[in-house]
Formats: sequence, structure tokens, C-alpha cells
Amino acid sequence: MDAPRDVDEFEDEVERPKLPEAPLVPIRSVLVPPATKGHLSVARMTAAWFIVAQSHELGRAPMPTMLMGMPLVLFRDGEGKAGALLDRCPHRNVPLSLGSIEEGQLQCPYHGWRLDREGRCKHVPSLCSEARAADEKGRRAPSFPVIEQDGFVWVYATPTLEPGEMPESAPYKFPHADARGYTTTRDVVFAESTMHAAIENALDVPHTAFLHKGLFRSKSRGIEITAVVKRGADRVEAEYVGEPRPPGLVARILSPSGGTVTHFDRFILPSIAQVEYKIGTESHFLVTSAMTPVTDFFTRIYAVVSFKLRLIPGWLIKPFLRPLALRIFQQDAVILKTQTETIRRFGGEQFTSTEIDVLGRHIWRLMKAAERGAITAGDAEGEAERIKLLV
Amino acid sequence: MDAPRDVDEFEDEVERPKLPEAPLVPIRSVLVPPATKGHLSVARMTAAWFIVAQSHELGRAPMPTMLMGMPLVLFRDGEGKAGALLDRCPHRNVPLSLGSIEEGQLQCPYHGWRLDREGRCKHVPSLCSEARAADEKGRRAPSFPVIEQDGFVWVYATPTLEPGEMPESAPYKFPHADARGYTTTRDVVFAESTMHAAIENALDVPHTAFLHKGLFRSKSRGIEITAVVKRGADRVEAEYVGEPRPPGLVARILSPSGGTVTHFDRFILPSIAQVEYKIGTESHFLVTSAMTPVTDFFTRIYAVVSFKLRLIPGWLIKPFLRPLALRIFQQDAVILKTQTETIRRFGGEQFTSTEIDVLGRHIWRLMKAAERGAITAGDAEGEAERIKLLV
Amino acid sequence: MDAPRDVDEFEDEVERPKLPEAPLVPIRSVLVPPATKGHLSVARMTAAWFIVAQSHELGRAPMPTMLMGMPLVLFRDGEGKAGALLDRCPHRNVPLSLGSIEEGQLQCPYHGWRLDREGRCKHVPSLCSEARAADEKGRRAPSFPVIEQDGFVWVYATPTLEPGEMPESAPYKFPHADARGYTTTRDVVFAESTMHAAIENALDVPHTAFLHKGLFRSKSRGIEITAVVKRGADRVEAEYVGEPRPPGLVARILSPSGGTVTHFDRFILPSIAQVEYKIGTESHFLVTSAMTPVTDFFTRIYAVVSFKLRLIPGWLIKPFLRPLALRIFQQDAVILKTQTETIRRFGGEQFTSTEIDVLGRHIWRLMKAAERGAITAGDAEGEAERIKLLV
Repeated sequence: MDAPRDVDEFEDEVERPKLPEAPLVPIRSVLVPPATKGHLSVARMTAAWFIVAQSHELGRAPMPTMLMGMPLVLFRDGEGKAGALLDRCPHRNVPLSLGSIEEGQLQCPYHGWRLDREGRCKHVPSLCSEARAADEKGRRAPSFPVIEQDGFVWVYATPTLEPGEMPESAPYKFPHADARGYTTTRDVVFAESTMHAAIENALDVPHTAFLHKGLFRSKSRGIEITAVVKRGADRVEAEYVGEPRPPGLVARILSPSGGTVTHFDRFILPSIAQVEYKIGTESHFLVTSAMTPVTDFFTRIYAVVSFKLRLIPGWLIKPFLRPLALRIFQQDAVILKTQTETIRRFGGEQFTSTEIDVLGRHIWRLMKAAERGAITAGDAEGEAERIKLLV
Repeated sequence: MDAPRDVDEFEDEVERPKLPEAPLVPIRSVLVPPATKGHLSVARMTAAWFIVAQSHELGRAPMPTMLMGMPLVLFRDGEGKAGALLDRCPHRNVPLSLGSIEEGQLQCPYHGWRLDREGRCKHVPSLCSEARAADEKGRRAPSFPVIEQDGFVWVYATPTLEPGEMPESAPYKFPHADARGYTTTRDVVFAESTMHAAIENALDVPHTAFLHKGLFRSKSRGIEITAVVKRGADRVEAEYVGEPRPPGLVARILSPSGGTVTHFDRFILPSIAQVEYKIGTESHFLVTSAMTPVTDFFTRIYAVVSFKLRLIPGWLIKPFLRPLALRIFQQDAVILKTQTETIRRFGGEQFTSTEIDVLGRHIWRLMKAAERGAITAGDAEGEAERIKLLV
Repeated sequence: MDAPRDVDEFEDEVERPKLPEAPLVPIRSVLVPPATKGHLSVARMTAAWFIVAQSHELGRAPMPTMLMGMPLVLFRDGEGKAGALLDRCPHRNVPLSLGSIEEGQLQCPYHGWRLDREGRCKHVPSLCSEARAADEKGRRAPSFPVIEQDGFVWVYATPTLEPGEMPESAPYKFPHADARGYTTTRDVVFAESTMHAAIENALDVPHTAFLHKGLFRSKSRGIEITAVVKRGADRVEAEYVGEPRPPGLVARILSPSGGTVTHFDRFILPSIAQVEYKIGTESHFLVTSAMTPVTDFFTRIYAVVSFKLRLIPGWLIKPFLRPLALRIFQQDAVILKTQTETIRRFGGEQFTSTEIDVLGRHIWRLMKAAERGAITAGDAEGEAERIKLLV
């Protein structure tokens, strides 16, 4: 990372205050049972693209955002091209997002330093000309690769070493979003949880009969189905075989005349949770949630729903579908929030799983591997695993 | 403790993120004077019974409570018998207190796991039958011994190893609560302090003339009395000898015609603070405060007052006594709260005592011994100590 | 420091609870870029005088205040002389500022201990006479030297070892505050920043053209001036040579007919930031900010402005000057607050400076030397440094 390289003259070798450190009494409001090991499903995948804003949100003013706890400032240069810098002026650490755009550059509100899309300092007011060019490198703000695609601003979570550098990987491309015959809706929601918990929730089948009783699925009818789990280098997918058409309200809207259900739950690195339903021959329903780890315990979800139905035109179904989807998500949001509160209160997760927690552990292993940078194209696919469950 | 024993598949040996830990700047808003040693009178007595609720508060819905920072859920099974579990589903750590009672079992709202009074998982929806019985032990939630007595729900602060296990010790029994001729009132109040500070306050004589001026005692009249301190294996008691009838309002209500005062202040492990007054031959006044360490710095006090008076029937005095008692406690609550704030701001207690701080140090030694599990029936009583003080 | 010396009987050698420490999950909402070193420009200068209140604020009631995170209580004894004690009763650590003044002594609200201006305990209610004198020393509250001067209560930041002790150094004396022909205004403002950041801001020239555009200075006119920096044992000063009369509104008020500008920016240990302007022959303008480090990240600023003008009487200008000055400061306050938030979020400062950051590093070195107690009268003045900048 291209951090300021010049020595900061405020820095010194003198040890900290001779006065004793305040032994601030921690709020030990938790008596952790011995079994809690403090594990947390937080993976910080820095070699990855995440959505940080919708394109239409980024106008003429600089816009603050956050990615994995890093404050970023987004802005557009003179040609409208989006840039992302660490939201901290290299000079005196004022947030750049409080500044303004001058001549296509981001100007700090404190002393007026101007930075370009690559974080390079192009102007220091009051500084005489010979000193201006002296240390451009040391005055650079960390900048991040940016790509606009599908109406979203994607940022790569590692700052560039050299201006203009771009990673080899590309952001995820939403399928069917612009496809003919498909209707697409976009929504942004928030989960007060780790990204892993939000993804596991989005791809979990058994909770739907409880938490979303009557909305999405109803209580178990004792029908045995099979989940066929396939692992890839950057993904894991469960296909549910033998699933009857759910009797819930959503199902009735999706496919009034019934038919065979094809159902996939899919995780794609770094943060895509995808649920795909085909009911009968022509109805197709694809919910793709691109998640952004805003902080370790706060996840923003860009949900893109693309669907086509046999009989009913999309514009007719859209007004009914959205409130329903948001209501389902609202129920999940409450659970995710209280789950996170409990985990943090206890100092870590203490999960017990059964075989019908089909995808959670695979997702976690992929995320951990991605965090270590251990994802390679050569990764062999695991053999398919088959799990029975009752619905 | 019977913690989930199966290996959590999310756990792994990989070290935490390769990115540097955030050296979050602490709020060092305190410059501790060198003399502060960071001591705190917090003893976590886990081999002990504490009140966690009044019996009438626990109805048909699960009820969240907290003991020494541990979130607990209380509920009643099909026969109305109370149970106490750690308020965290063994599956995905959602608070069980958000769930419901189904067929006498506690059902988690997320995936519908059902737990009995011993924390055993009796049902996992969607799980096929052969897998259900496989790992009951690993799916158990920590459960705590419960006894209902005197209208209170008592919980033993250590979870059981085996279902149904009960400790040898029993909860404290309130004396005179049901006795003939006695009137009893019950109140629940809160002190934002350590339990030790709340107990010392409840059993401290000198502060009453200042803090409760005119209500309970008045300013010193220079009469010398003697505190006779006796120590036992699980208790310490001060008898105040030579005490004149106090001239305050409370005293006038207690004993209109005067008489000799017999006054005991008593601490009984783990958390009973008892003040006993006999004025004259027939008036008897017993304030028993059973304290619950909700967190290290928050104490709930179940105050049971039993009294009989010579001339006046209890029902006549009750409406006057309660507001007075609550007003006295309110004054104590303000002091305890600001004392705690100061202690926490300085990072610990820095107390200086004199000989008239009669019981505080004895109480602390008992609590520390109980925390270490060092209380035995064989403990010899200490010799009585005699301390003079002016009232 | 004269901390209570008697052994606290609550203290013991037993290790803390046998239960595992709660591994409370930190709010790791920050992914610190590797370049952040966690440096903070916080110097805790304890061998120094600071203003803790204005004299008129300290009446008959005890008054709580804070200095470098230390809670202090100010009060006046029977003769009206001000005293400053650590705001914590030596007995049971209740804040003394909640007490009252009785017979010129500070009385704790809990047990009525009375302390004099030197922190000595003069009375313990209920304690028998022979025990009263026994351990006066152990019952002493830390007391701090106090001097009232220029309408301010100054406190020396180190408690005395012996009652009555006074340090050799004296508080800063405001020049011209009582001088003939000068008008003086006093204001108290707050900066949510380190004291160093507030001082650097007060003495920084380049930011004025940006942050205070149109109010104080306007945009650069490309005129090259020279800053002549002189260092002393306890101070650093920049004289700006060749500065034209600023065209801004303030300048027009200060000197309607123009004239040569003499401009000094001055830092004097421990916490004085002084801006001096002479415009023409008779107009003189002196802004002295005596700063108080309330906590590491909160600075109180006592601003004393003394001025005389050629043509206009002070009483006429005063009503215009103050709102203008407060508006300028308000702009600075926003910057300082957001700068501090950013620094704390990142875990430390990561500044890059140029040569026109004229005084910041000198101020920091003086402050660090003062923190270490390394300021001696023998310190040689550094050679004058000359820096060109454009205004």
C-alpha cells in the first residue's frame, strides 16, 4: 500500500507519559461460560470487490462510505469517473468527505490540499512552487480501484501501490439483470450482523418454516427431500431435489398452477448469496444478494431480484412482491441483530450444528481461504455430498 | 459445566486476520493518581443461590433475566415448574427468551429447536429421525438449578453437569415472613453499585446521621455506644450495645413509648444484609435485603421487611412505612451510584477506613472466601471484637 | 504525591476471579491501514499551571472540574480562599463535589468527613476522640496548589506532598489585560481535540484563507512573505515579514487606513497560544488563548483579547468583534472535532507536513520536553529559521 513515506516530524522515540496508564475498569457485565472460545465468523477479505454505493447516489459532492471499517470517500472527477480514497487528508487527517470538488479534484476543507482520483496531491495552497513538487509521494492518500457496473460502484478492498493499478479480478456480474423477459428489482437493506451470519441466513432452508411461518414456507409436512451439495474453487451450491411446490403465499404467486420445483442456494466468493427457483417450465426466480461488510458486525445487502413468470407480467407482480420480500427480510433482520448481540455479549460464537446446516461451514471455509489469499483457479471441486432433510 | 462438547465445525486453527489489529485509541479520560491500585470489591460467588425473579413475574412467556452478567432465560414447563437456561440457543446463539413455550418446552424463534427444563434438545425441525438422537449432549443448553421459595425464584449460579443435579446448599429462608403477628412488605429496588458496596451501605451505622438526617437518625448527640462484632463461618454480626432510642421519625413510629433498643446488623453469605431492631419488649423490626449481583456494578435488592409493633396494627403503619423506607433508599441509591462512577473513573477503589467502618472488611473477606469456595462448616468463630462509636 | 498511606484493609493478595475473564468482543469497526503508527500528540504536562475556572464561577458551593482527566473539586474556605482537591472522598470514594461547605471545610455527603483546603481530614463523625487524630495522614485527600490571578482560578497539575507547598513556577500573566488604552474581552470556548491540535490550529496561517474564506483572510494573492521562526527555552515564535494588510473584513475594521503589518504567532509553555498584530503605528491586537487539557481529547480555551485601535474606541468595536471571532472559532471547532474523530477512528495520527506547517513540530517538541520535565532555564535559543510562503 502506498502510505505516506516521509517521516512525520511529530513522531518521536520518547516513550508515552510517565504517569501510569489508566487501568480503566472494563464493563465486565458478562460472566462467560467456560465453553465460549471467543471464535467469530469474521473474515476480512481484502483481495475482493464490494459494492460501496449505487451509481445514482454519487453525484457532484464527495460521499463518505465505509468498507470493513475503513472510512472511504467517493467522488467523481471532471469527466465523471468515480474515485475512492481513504477518507482522511494526508496532511492533518481531516475527513476529505467534508471537502468539495474543485477542477475535478477533491479539496480538503482545512488547508485546501487538492487530491486527484489516484490520491495524488496536486496542489498545496501557500506552498512556494519549488517545494510543491518535492514530495508528491509522501502527500498521497491511499486510493482504491473503482469500477462502475450494473448501476453499482464497486471498490476493491486493497489500496493500489501505484496510481492506475487494477487487480486482475473483476466485480461480480448480476445474471439476467438486463435480460429480455425478466423483471428486476433492486433494494438495499441492512443486517446488524457479521457478513457470514447474513449469508448463512440468506441461504438457510430450515429456518423459513419457523421464522417466516405462513409467508414463505409453512410448517413441515414431513416430506423428505435431498440437498445435493457441490463445492467449487470460489463457490458452494446446494440443489434441493424432491422439493414439492411450497404451499405458502409466495409460492402461490410464483406459480399459480404448480409444477416441479428446481431450487438452488448458492454462495459465490467474496459475498454473493444467491437463491434460484424454477417452478414449472417457465417461471424463473433469482434473488442475488451482494453483501458488503461495512464493519465486522454491520452488513449492507444489495438485493437484486430478477424474475419471469409464466402467466403474469412482471409489472403486475412487482408491487406485491416487494412488500412481501421486505417483510421476510425484516423478520430475518431482528433475528440477526439479537443473534449478534448475544454473540458479542458472550465474547464469541458457540454454535452447534447438525447436518441440515447445509452450507454454513462451507461458506466459512471459503471466506477464510479468501482472507488468506488461498483461492486458486486450480482448486478441485469436492465430491457432491447428499443430505436428507424434512420439509 | 455441561457445555456443548461437540466440535464446532466453524472453529479453525487459522490465526486471526493478517491485517494489523486496530490500535483503537482508548478514551484515556482519566489520569489516575499513582496511589490507585485498581482494586475492586467484586466477588463472583458461583456456588451460591440468588433470587432472579419474583414467582408472580414468571408467567407463560419465557422471561429474560441476568445473574453476574450471565443472560438467563426463565420459563415454566408443562407442569408449571420453573427452569433456568443460559439465554442462548446452542444452535445459532439467538436469545431463547425471544422464543415461545411449545408443549412445555422452550422453542427457539430462529429454527425451532425445543429445549426442556434441563436444557436438553428434544426436537430439531427438518432433521431426519436417525440424526435426531445422535448428539443430544452437544445440543444441550447450560441449565441452572432452580428453587421457588418464599415467593421468589432462586437460581444456583453454577450450571449443572448432569440433568436434574441439585447442589447440597439451599436458598436463604426469610425469617418471620409468614409468622403470626408479623406484617411483611416486599420491595424490589436497584443499586448501581457493586454488591459489596450495597451491602456495606445497608449495614453501616455512621452514614445514617448524615445522609438520612432527620429521617432515620439525627445528628450525633455524643453518646458513646459499643459495637460487639461476632464472626461465624458464613456470617458476621454487629450488636450495638447502649444505643438510646433514636429521636428520628422512624423511631417515633416504631416505639411511641420508648424502651431499650436491641440492634443487630448482620451479613449472611452469599448476599443477605439484615438489620434487626427490638425496641422495648414487644416491637420487633427485621429488614432483610437479599441482593442479586446482576452485573459487577449493578445490584438488585429484594427487600423483605417483617415487623410487629406493641400498640399499632401493622396494616395501619404499612402505608407510612413504605414511602419512608423508599425515600431512605433513594438517598442511598444516589450515593452508591456516584461512588461507583468515581471508582470506575479512577480504575478502582482507594478506600481509607477507620475502626467505625465496622463490618465492611469482614463482609469482603467472607465474600472472597466464598468466591474461592473456601467456606467450610468447620470455620471457627472469631473472638468478639468491641468497637466504641459516638451516636 | 501525598496519597493515602495506610493499608486499605479491603485490599488482598488473592488473584482475581477464577472464572475466565470475559473476552469481550471489541468493536473492531476500523481496519487500520498499515501506515498508521498510533502516534498521538498528547503530552501530559503535570509540572504546569492551567486555568480550571473563572473566579466568578466559584461561589459558595463546591464546584466540580476536570484537568487532564482528573476529577477535581474546587471550593472556597472560610476566608474565601480557593482550594482544589481530587474529587473523591478518601473514605469511600464518593465525589466530594456533591457535598457542602461546613465551617469553611468541605464535607462529604455520605459520612460527613470534613476536609480543609489542603485535603486534611479535620473531622470524622461518630469516631471517638482518641481515634480521631490517629491517622490524619492516611485520611488526606490529594490537594493541588491554587492561585487566583487575572480573574481565573489556576491549578498546578501535581498534588502537593506537604500541605501548603507551592511550586516555584507561577501561572502565565496576561499582558495588556489591565493596560490603559486597551479594551479586553474574555471568552471561554471548547475544542473537541487534543490540546496540541487546538494550539497548532490557533497559530496556523495557511488554513485561514480556506477555512475562514472572506472572514479573516481571502484567497491567496500570490504575494511571497517570510516566516522568521525563533525558538526559546519555553517558547517558539514566528514573525511574518512582508505581509500586506489583509483585504478581509477583520482587517478593514482593525485598520481602516492601512499601514504596515507586524504579525507574530507565539506558543508559550505549557499552553498559551498568542497571535499579535500591529497594523500601522497605533493599532495593536493581541489574542491570547490559555488552553486547558480537560481530557486528552477535549480542550477548554480561555481566550483573552486585548486591543487598541487608532481611530475607533474599543467599546464601539467590541460588539462587532466578538460575533466575528466566535464565528471564526466555530469553523475551527468543526474541523478540530472531525479531525479528532478521524484520528481516533484510525487509532492515531498519520500527518504529513510541509515547510509551511511552521510551528506545529516545534510546539510538539516543547510539550514533550515539558512532559518529561526537561525544560531548563539554560536552554539555548535555536538559530532563527526562515520560511517562504505565499499569501
